[in-house]
Amino acid sequence: RRTGVPEVVLGQGKTPGQTLALLAALRRGDPSGPALATRCPEAVLAAAPGAFPGETVTVDVLGRTVVVGALPAPRGDTVVLTAGTADVPVARECATTLAVLGVAAEVIPDVGVAGLHRLLGRLERLREAHAVVVVAGMDGALPSVVAGLVAAPVIGVPTSVGYGVAAGGLAAAASMLATCAPGLVVVNVDNGFGAAVHAAKIEGLAADG
Amino acid sequence: RRTGVPEVVLGQGKTPGQTLALLAALRRGDPSGPALATRCPEAVLAAAPGAFPGETVTVDVLGRTVVVGALPAPRGDTVVLTAGTADVPVARECATTLAVLGVAAEVIPDVGVAGLHRLLGRLERLREAHAVVVVAGMDGALPSVVAGLVAAPVIGVPTSVGYGVAAGGLAAAASMLATCAPGLVVVNVDNGFGAAVHAAKIEGLAADG
Amino acid sequence: RRTGVPEVVLGQGKTPGQTLALLAALRRGDPSGPALATRCPEAVLAAAPGAFPGETVTVDVLGRTVVVGALPAPRGDTVVLTAGTADVPVARECATTLAVLGVAAEVIPDVGVAGLHRLLGRLERLREAHAVVVVAGMDGALPSVVAGLVAAPVIGVPTSVGYGVAAGGLAAAASMLATCAPGLVVVNVDNGFGAAVHAAKIEGLAADG
Amino acid sequence: RRTGVPEVVLGQGKTPGQTLALLAALRRGDPSGPALATRCPEAVLAAAPGAFPGETVTVDVLGRTVVVGALPAPRGDTVVLTAGTADVPVARECATTLAVLGVAAEVIPDVGVAGLHRLLGRLERLREAHAVVVVAGMDGALPSVVAGLVAAPVIGVPTSVGYGVAAGGLAAAASMLATCAPGLVVVNVDNGFGAAVHAAKIEGLAADG
Amino acid sequence: RRTGVPEVVLGQGKTPGQTLALLAALRRGDPSGPALATRCPEAVLAAAPGAFPGETVTVDVLGRTVVVGALPAPRGDTVVLTAGTADVPVARECATTLAVLGVAAEVIPDVGVAGLHRLLGRLERLREAHAVVVVAGMDGALPSVVAGLVAAPVIGVPTSVGYGVAAGGLAAAASMLATCAPGLVVVNVDNGFGAAVHAAKIEGLAADG
Amino acid sequence: RRTGVPEVVLGQGKTPGQTLALLAALRRGDPSGPALATRCPEAVLAAAPGAFPGETVTVDVLGRTVVVGALPAPRGDTVVLTAGTADVPVARECATTLAVLGVAAEVIPDVGVAGLHRLLGRLERLREAHAVVVVAGMDGALPSVVAGLVAAPVIGVPTSVGYGVAAGGLAAAASMLATCAPGLVVVNVDNGFGAAVHAAKIEGLAADG
Amino acid sequence: RRTGVPEVVLGQGKTPGQTLALLAALRRGDPSGPALATRCPEAVLAAAPGAFPGETVTVDVLGRTVVVGALPAPRGDTVVLTAGTADVPVARECATTLAVLGVAAEVIPDVGVAGLHRLLGRLERLREAHAVVVVAGMDGALPSVVAGLVAAPVIGVPTSVGYGVAAGGLAAAASMLATCAPGLVVVNVDNGFGAAVHAAKIEGLAADG
Amino acid sequence: RRTGVPEVVLGQGKTPGQTLALLAALRRGDPSGPALATRCPEAVLAAAPGAFPGETVTVDVLGRTVVVGALPAPRGDTVVLTAGTADVPVARECATTLAVLGVAAEVIPDVGVAGLHRLLGRLERLREAHAVVVVAGMDGALPSVVAGLVAAPVIGVPTSVGYGVAAGGLAAAASMLATCAPGLVVVNVDNGFGAAVHAAKIEGLAADG
Ligand SMILES: Nc1ncnc2c1ncn2[C@@H]1O[C@H](COP(=O)(O)O)[C@@H](O)[C@H]1O
Ligand SMILES: Nc1ncnc2c1ncn2[C@@H]1O[C@H](COP(=O)(O)O)[C@@H](O)[C@H]1O
Ligand SMILES: Nc1ncnc2c1ncn2[C@@H]1O[C@H](COP(=O)(O)O)[C@@H](O)[C@H]1O
Ligand SMILES: Nc1ncnc2c1ncn2[C@@H]1O[C@H](COP(=O)(O)O)[C@@H](O)[C@H]1O
Ligand SMILES: [Mg+2]
Ligand SMILES: [Mg+2]
Ligand SMILES: [Mg+2]
Ligand SMILES: [Mg+2]
Ligand SMILES: [Mg+2]
Ligand SMILES: [Mg+2]
Ligand SMILES: [Mg+2]
Ligand SMILES: [Mg+2]
Repeated sequence: RRTGVPEVVLGQGKTPGQTLALLAALRRGDPSGPALATRCPEAVLAAAPGAFPGETVTVDVLGRTVVVGALPAPRGDTVVLTAGTADVPVARECATTLAVLGVAAEVIPDVGVAGLHRLLGRLERLREAHAVVVVAGMDGALPSVVAGLVAAPVIGVPTSVGYGVAAGGLAAAASMLATCAPGLVVVNVDNGFGAAVHAAKIEGLAADG
Repeated sequence: RRTGVPEVVLGQGKTPGQTLALLAALRRGDPSGPALATRCPEAVLAAAPGAFPGETVTVDVLGRTVVVGALPAPRGDTVVLTAGTADVPVARECATTLAVLGVAAEVIPDVGVAGLHRLLGRLERLREAHAVVVVAGMDGALPSVVAGLVAAPVIGVPTSVGYGVAAGGLAAAASMLATCAPGLVVVNVDNGFGAAVHAAKIEGLAADG
Repeated sequence: RRTGVPEVVLGQGKTPGQTLALLAALRRGDPSGPALATRCPEAVLAAAPGAFPGETVTVDVLGRTVVVGALPAPRGDTVVLTAGTADVPVARECATTLAVLGVAAEVIPDVGVAGLHRLLGRLERLREAHAVVVVAGMDGALPSVVAGLVAAPVIGVPTSVGYGVAAGGLAAAASMLATCAPGLVVVNVDNGFGAAVHAAKIEGLAADG
Repeated sequence: RRTGVPEVVLGQGKTPGQTLALLAALRRGDPSGPALATRCPEAVLAAAPGAFPGETVTVDVLGRTVVVGALPAPRGDTVVLTAGTADVPVARECATTLAVLGVAAEVIPDVGVAGLHRLLGRLERLREAHAVVVVAGMDGALPSVVAGLVAAPVIGVPTSVGYGVAAGGLAAAASMLATCAPGLVVVNVDNGFGAAVHAAKIEGLAADG
Repeated sequence: RRTGVPEVVLGQGKTPGQTLALLAALRRGDPSGPALATRCPEAVLAAAPGAFPGETVTVDVLGRTVVVGALPAPRGDTVVLTAGTADVPVARECATTLAVLGVAAEVIPDVGVAGLHRLLGRLERLREAHAVVVVAGMDGALPSVVAGLVAAPVIGVPTSVGYGVAAGGLAAAASMLATCAPGLVVVNVDNGFGAAVHAAKIEGLAADG
Repeated sequence: RRTGVPEVVLGQGKTPGQTLALLAALRRGDPSGPALATRCPEAVLAAAPGAFPGETVTVDVLGRTVVVGALPAPRGDTVVLTAGTADVPVARECATTLAVLGVAAEVIPDVGVAGLHRLLGRLERLREAHAVVVVAGMDGALPSVVAGLVAAPVIGVPTSVGYGVAAGGLAAAASMLATCAPGLVVVNVDNGFGAAVHAAKIEGLAADG
Repeated sequence: RRTGVPEVVLGQGKTPGQTLALLAALRRGDPSGPALATRCPEAVLAAAPGAFPGETVTVDVLGRTVVVGALPAPRGDTVVLTAGTADVPVARECATTLAVLGVAAEVIPDVGVAGLHRLLGRLERLREAHAVVVVAGMDGALPSVVAGLVAAPVIGVPTSVGYGVAAGGLAAAASMLATCAPGLVVVNVDNGFGAAVHAAKIEGLAADG
Repeated sequence: RRTGVPEVVLGQGKTPGQTLALLAALRRGDPSGPALATRCPEAVLAAAPGAFPGETVTVDVLGRTVVVGALPAPRGDTVVLTAGTADVPVARECATTLAVLGVAAEVIPDVGVAGLHRLLGRLERLREAHAVVVVAGMDGALPSVVAGLVAAPVIGVPTSVGYGVAAGGLAAAASMLATCAPGLVVVNVDNGFGAAVHAAKIEGLAADG
């Protein structure tokens, strides 16, 4: 764990057999924590519960993740916001990764900028967090608004939610990179996993500080 | 005035002589209102005050407009917001065009989403307006936020303000088109003129309603 | 109804169960008007008629909308044009949204610029409207032509109709934003809903003027 | 003249000396017709009149062309339309090239779709032409409208006129390629030269038919 | 037939019922020539032979066209080249449209630039043609080469054949528009129909010249 | 200082007078720390030393920053790497912003992946840092390599250094977002300022942890 | 074999029957070496073993290739690296093509930059190779790193592996073209075939040198 | 010289002083061969002849290179073709780099595909070369044609020559990557340097083979 982050299986682009075998190998190789696979196709999600006899296996069909092994005790406090309901799967990939990395995560869904009172009603909670991950598709405006409201580091995750110029998530990604709010950082479209790893590194520093 | 909108000279891509001659011709052809030129190069802005003897000539160096003839009495109430200071020239092109079309316009600058309190402090004023034009570069997030806060029609004007992925204004334009706020409409990058014409048409209906 | 617009369910990216539940909740929460869902997948369109016992349920398979509750009495006069037959579904999403918002809407299909006489034959009718929504894919040329012919506000809706450089609707959207016709405004590709909300805001001002 | 078209010097990207020398060489190599250079920088336009003693030299500063030698007698009838005043330089490059190739060309400027009556007022004239070249920037809508009105072959030339999404001419080019009008063909942005060569080939067939 | 071109049904984006009904209506409305539908989905291709009792119905499954009614006697001479085997469907859409418009068309497939001898072996035949349509995906290089070899007008049709940067056909389209060969004109990706209409207009002039 | 970050003047798009006046106002408004302006044009860099009598003024011509007031005592340890020499100005904007925010920053230039030994030679130093900012243009590969080597949070800053497909920095930005190294986050092209603010927030947590 | 490379069937865009027939024809036409088809659909891969009675048929389901005939004796030494497991199919298309062309190829998978030790552990082997093909999706960083480590010619093959900004492989391709490592050359996304042909030409020179 | 290639100064993005100092340092550090700087601004080209007393200094104003020290004796045979006259500067950057690396290079300019006889007239010479570099802007078609004609490895260099869709060279680059000619490899737009390094590596193998 050269970088402090365990290896994680990217389920996309692999056969179900490859993914399950890699999960088993990771689990054997590093029994100090659970093994994680993300972006799993249906077949992996369906087979996982029966594939690791004697193990705790946690499958999140919405977030497309499989965890083999018990989660570590959580420390820290990272909040994961979403702009809309359709952004929730990416938030769950993020929250599951945080849990695997030993970080306490709360998901607050559907607080997009089209109804700002929803966000403002959560402001006190947001200001307690060590790090805030903001998941948003379409206009990608929410992370810029949040980064202007809290002192904690903010990580924007654009999503592929939307249609027309929003399809694929590039409009949201560009808006987040172009932000007028100082300090907002961005990961790839739909990459809840990457945002979680960055937040966990921050939480590690906070804990060790 | 088939469409209710007088012709306007687009100064860009013309020689100064062409623009000044077209302004004079428009002024002669339709003495019922002032003649307007937009996106004027320096040479036109410098020459205009001396080029129409006996006329009221108003030059806005920042907004790059020339108006020949007295403005009509304003009616209606359109508010023009900007996200940053650098967006003000586009807001002024918009306000001048509204004035030429007989609409009362107030420009409220520098209320971008990175400091949301600035916008929320103006909410009461915003909610009085018949129409709201929101001028924003970089992330282009402000129009989506405003469209979620007011009942009046909202028109987004992306600007070419910014650098990196924001350069040229396409990121802001895409974010506005992809908005999650219902009813936001968009014009071309830096096109304060077009937003003003649309707002004036709305004000006309409001007045005639 | 902070913005004067009721919430609307975006069916895309949700499970059928989520969409039907949200429709029921909206209907209960605001009985003063009907509840609307747009961009509904097949399963929602099929299940909706049986899902709201005792309610008037209107399903438009072509426009992919579900309305629960009786429509309000219409006022105003908005015309929705389409360039081609394949643009009609977007026009119907627009017309249904207008109806839900209490605006009288007429759809005039298939008057694209390749046969200009079709449009010119409707000019008198067009000039009566308070607002004109123009739905066009491929070259996206029709809204610019219409905006040069009528005094009412014109809203362009690019569509994803077409192939090659037209696929996805970005060519149509860019052409509309780049318009030489003053005052044309634009919404996202296929966003008949957003155009309707903007037109309804304009109709509201016209009625209250 | 393997392809029936003489070589032409592209002045852009060459030193003035190179362009003038190539013009002289072309003139010597093929005295049966004049030599042409297009997209000439200022220095070439200024030097050309004195650089070919004993020759008829015609310089078009607006269209940026230099012709050395007398023009052939014109035959045929090609009309070159422009949408706006700023598109005229490209139309003149086209008309000069047609003249060099022995084709009679008439330029009709500023008949863009924002004021359709200007085009419709020229319809009779247009319908006489063997071929119609339509030069348009910004929305690029005019060629689609023209191609729906005349039986002759229509060639669209997008221009780099415009700003925002129109800057560089790609929006106009995409709209023309995506046309709903059958038979419209397109050349590169600002390529009046290429449109002229195609029209001249058509005129040649018409003459020989 | 204002433009000399009969209406043609674009099968894509319509229900099979709509397309067959439109074909029947066109056939009734203009019995002087056959009715054509292009880009037909499987269902239309399968149903067409039984849908027009008493009519000659010609279905091209590869080119995805349906023709109802006998073809006119052909005149003129247009050659349609393809770069690869996978470009042939677009060439057949082109050839069928030419046949419907009364033009004699010959398709010469698989003469792409990777094996130049194949093209050079056909040069004599190419030089006889009145017009040459060149269909090419991937690099889109063949039309530039052909336009440098023949005196007839050349029309490039980019195709969506290829993968990686070639997927969708935009690389081929850009290469054709950027051509260094004077007089090459271009239509939309996969638009064999549009190229045929342009060629037929040229053949009409050649015949009447 | 709602977000813990003082306001900073973005010098680009403002007149020199505006920037200097804003700096003076910030300095007066918040004397607890220095005032900073970034992306300053030449005129601001030249005038700044004489514009704030009685103040410590630090101008970085290469990094285009002006600081008015003494720097706070530094805490923490952030390392700023660059791939090439031409990326140094962005690294200096970053280092100056860190200094203004009270963070100790070391710039290590010219350790790009084309000569990997340069990076590997610094690995021990890198592994001590709390946060690592990696500034790279052209291929944008360095941040992915670094993120695979250290446990600290890594922030990638793409730059506009390069030509051809690298011009403008979008290729570098896309490569960083697409990284295969978990936890790498990205800011806008050339935005050393934003990376510094994010790093300072992380350092704050580390200090308070 | 004008270019020293036998023709190869591109299976994509052809019917299974066409591909099998072309393979048979190639085999008959040039019995001096095996016949190869790439990018074969499932149906071809399934039918191939039974379609060439009396022939050695080698099918690679992962790499989607079919080889008919015995492979020539290998010479030379080309190494094919991949960044991730999902890039292996492209590496196998490359290795099979090399084998058909008579070149000895070794595939070393999964040595991407996120775990640099994997690559550095193979450095000695890499430095023996005559040519190195590097297959990478997502960030596309590996070829730049390799080109800075070895003296042999390096060929980068971007792949379509990845999601978000990486989808389709254009981000990887742009990063490779923008490389800061001298001498890296690039082929189309997923084009293992093309890289193999270039490497084989190099091996030919090395053998003949 | 880990990779067999000496370091080379990229003059763009550096001050003239930096470039001259780096050249001097390279020259001192490795006296076994000359030092090279590419993409030099005017000031470097002007100052170089006087900046290295006692050294042979070769400046190529067109190719924007400076060489300090005597060239090694050339071996091998690489041909550098250009499509047009305006592509020659990139060809010269390539030829100078080859000379510095000890490879004999011949530049054959202006053999673009618009006049194929020019290329075919050089075929015999081309077929002698060990490697062929093909420099082309606009359509970028020439490298595909050449790669179909010769057995040697072919390297395509797209250039930024051209206007409209060709401006910046991305259309040429995409066409080359999308080639239907097996084995063509590509470098960045205008990167004659990179092509030369790859060719020199190939020549090295040929010599050692
Ligand atoms: N700033 C502007 N942006 C877009 N269009 C404009 C602007 N100013 C004037 N116009 C329009 O541009 C057209 C004039 O184009 P032209 O024929 O080139 O003078 C008129 O129809 C104006 O309404
Ligand atoms: N180099 C920079 N890049 C991005 N944002 C900046 C930069 N420098 C200052 N800012 C931010 O830009 C905003 C100032 O914008 P304005 O209202 O136009 O002065 C402030 O919120 C700053 O935090
Ligand atoms: N995987 C591949 N990628 C690119 N080109 C290929 C591939 N496989 C075969 N080819 C080339 O594609 C051409 C065959 O095209 P076609 O005429 O459509 O069969 C031949 O020139 C082959 O060398
Ligand atoms: N305005 C123009 N646009 C496109 N091609 C042109 C133009 N003017 C001349 N050409 C062509 O450019 C080629 C000359 O390129 P070069 O070898 O660089 O001189 C000739 O084939 C001309 O036919
Ligand atoms: Mg919601
Ligand atoms: Mg501000
Ligand atoms: Mg129709
Ligand atoms: Mg005009
Ligand atoms: Mg073939
Ligand atoms: Mg360096
Ligand atoms: Mg791996
Ligand atoms: Mg030439």
